[in-house]
Amino acid sequence: MSGWQLNGWQQPISVPSAEHIERAEARQQQLTKPPGSLGQLEQLAVQFAGWQRNDQPQLSRIAIRIFAADHGVVAEGVSAFPQVVTGEMIRNFARGGAAISVLAQQLDADFGVVNMGTAIPVEPLAGVETIQLAAGSENFCQQPAMSTTQVADALAAGADQVPDNIDLFIGGEMGIGNTTAAAALVSQLLQLSPDVTVGRGTGVDDDGLARKRDAVVRALALHREHCQSPFDTLQRLGGLEIAALAGAYIGAAQRGIPSLIDGYICSAAALVACRLNPAVRDWLLFAHRSAEPGHRHILDDLNARPLLDLDLRLGEGSGAAVAVPLLQAACQLHNGMATFAEAGVSDGAESE
Amino acid sequence: MSGWQLNGWQQPISVPSAEHIERAEARQQQLTKPPGSLGQLEQLAVQFAGWQRNDQPQLSRIAIRIFAADHGVVAEGVSAFPQVVTGEMIRNFARGGAAISVLAQQLDADFGVVNMGTAIPVEPLAGVETIQLAAGSENFCQQPAMSTTQVADALAAGADQVPDNIDLFIGGEMGIGNTTAAAALVSQLLQLSPDVTVGRGTGVDDDGLARKRDAVVRALALHREHCQSPFDTLQRLGGLEIAALAGAYIGAAQRGIPSLIDGYICSAAALVACRLNPAVRDWLLFAHRSAEPGHRHILDDLNARPLLDLDLRLGEGSGAAVAVPLLQAACQLHNGMATFAEAGVSDGAESE
Repeated sequence: MSGWQLNGWQQPISVPSAEHIERAEARQQQLTKPPGSLGQLEQLAVQFAGWQRNDQPQLSRIAIRIFAADHGVVAEGVSAFPQVVTGEMIRNFARGGAAISVLAQQLDADFGVVNMGTAIPVEPLAGVETIQLAAGSENFCQQPAMSTTQVADALAAGADQVPDNIDLFIGGEMGIGNTTAAAALVSQLLQLSPDVTVGRGTGVDDDGLARKRDAVVRALALHREHCQSPFDTLQRLGGLEIAALAGAYIGAAQRGIPSLIDGYICSAAALVACRLNPAVRDWLLFAHRSAEPGHRHILDDLNARPLLDLDLRLGEGSGAAVAVPLLQAACQLHNGMATFAEAGVSDGAESE
Repeated sequence: MSGWQLNGWQQPISVPSAEHIERAEARQQQLTKPPGSLGQLEQLAVQFAGWQRNDQPQLSRIAIRIFAADHGVVAEGVSAFPQVVTGEMIRNFARGGAAISVLAQQLDADFGVVNMGTAIPVEPLAGVETIQLAAGSENFCQQPAMSTTQVADALAAGADQVPDNIDLFIGGEMGIGNTTAAAALVSQLLQLSPDVTVGRGTGVDDDGLARKRDAVVRALALHREHCQSPFDTLQRLGGLEIAALAGAYIGAAQRGIPSLIDGYICSAAALVACRLNPAVRDWLLFAHRSAEPGHRHILDDLNARPLLDLDLRLGEGSGAAVAVPLLQAACQLHNGMATFAEAGVSDGAESE
């Protein structure tokens, strides 16, 4: 299914160009503004220069892939929405009615949906690729969520979905129950209590929240001693779309393409990716601080400062798509502003 | 100079349409997403519906006006940059080399610069209107910054600069020394010590910071007892571009146009505007949390939650321009997403 060999996710990832980073930092000091006064936007432009090995970094070719799958753990009553919604939302993505569809159109992005495995089959639809490795993952309160083959295939399928010749990759997800899988992964990988990793997701009530926490507690008790590697952890506590996202982030980095990470579930996949291949971290930007409370623990662990904090918790890659114009502004300012010399403006150093 | 009569800033401001707000809130509940999951973006769309009295709020016609002026208080050694930079930057705005010029072009905004009063005259330039009420304000460590006539004229000139038939107004400022004026205004209006309102501005060193604090302390001692009204405070401690900004925000609100407020200086002007005419507050959005430490006190007083927190401290309206795509995304999502009924997606209520 993929150009990847066995264990392709361990293939090397190059480092961003130190030479271009240095030149970009020097240019930022010469632009007609007090040094540092564009804050994070300056650092973003420098990062894109290093990623693209380009003194005039561009951000126009954006690919968005939504990975969808179902989760056996919904049998534990962990979601406010019925499982049929995963397929219904795939149709909504394809017809342009979902949040991410609207945003992708505004960004003129290359947009696609990948059905990694819904519980209920979805008919063929334009813009939707059906991979369907299983009819959803298994209930990880009772058994591993996936087989090792399914995980390897999902990782490879994710990597395969990243187009060549793009400036930025955005992954999104849809899967009723997947905040529970994300919480289980984060609890195991960061050794955190489910009290801090389980949130209300799409909006469960207090009873639902208690069931969700209890499901993660039981899953950790069942699988903890078998989680000897990040791969094991993903296999036992993850999901098909989460594995595909992790593979996509790794595959993008291997091809020199940065990824903009959305909210809690995508960040859990990014955490898995960084554990599978730590060099991925250099190629990730984090779009926003999710309203889901566990998200900040991932951000802290990955030393990530997100761009936005708007109480978003929709998923679908929507928070990442909303943040793209900030990255574009950073590159446009870097390329388009005049230097002090070009503009004949006195710089601060002269006046001290 | 203006359609405003005497005390035009006190003319009434209408309230946003409660009927359109209610309908927009209802629509947000029906869109294919968990309720509330688009966070602040939902509230923004609802606000625009109320402002525009439009069930399909649009955000394409944006006007940006940069008000520039010099400040006599620079004689106290409060800035890292020489006063000649105000005029140099006016030329840079006009030639397209400044940050706000780059951003305005990307937004396809109606962009203009207004010279309210530079210390050194600036030659006529395309895109720059010269009002030049004085060769900068006076040094408020020694006397009032402006005369009452200058303040009234600057307020009216600002209001005059807001075009009709726009969806959003953005004000920007340029004026060496104007963070000192903003700090003095905020200290007086919010009764705060200069210790918390004075920051490094464009980047003064420790000695410069001490001079800046001392200048504000002396200005407050000189003027405090004469600051009986917001108008008095503006006259004694403000500046020509700050008065123009306050007038622009009031004039926009009087015409039913919302303003997106940039950083510390624009927020100080917005605070003045809200003190002059409290109904202005309903028509203001705050773009970002400035790196300038005093900014958060204004945001707290006005109960404002800014959209971005990117350590920006450039001014020029640049932070507001960077935030515009978030507002556009909010409107596009509101208008473009399918409802549960349209998409045939089960809503959460059915599953509980």
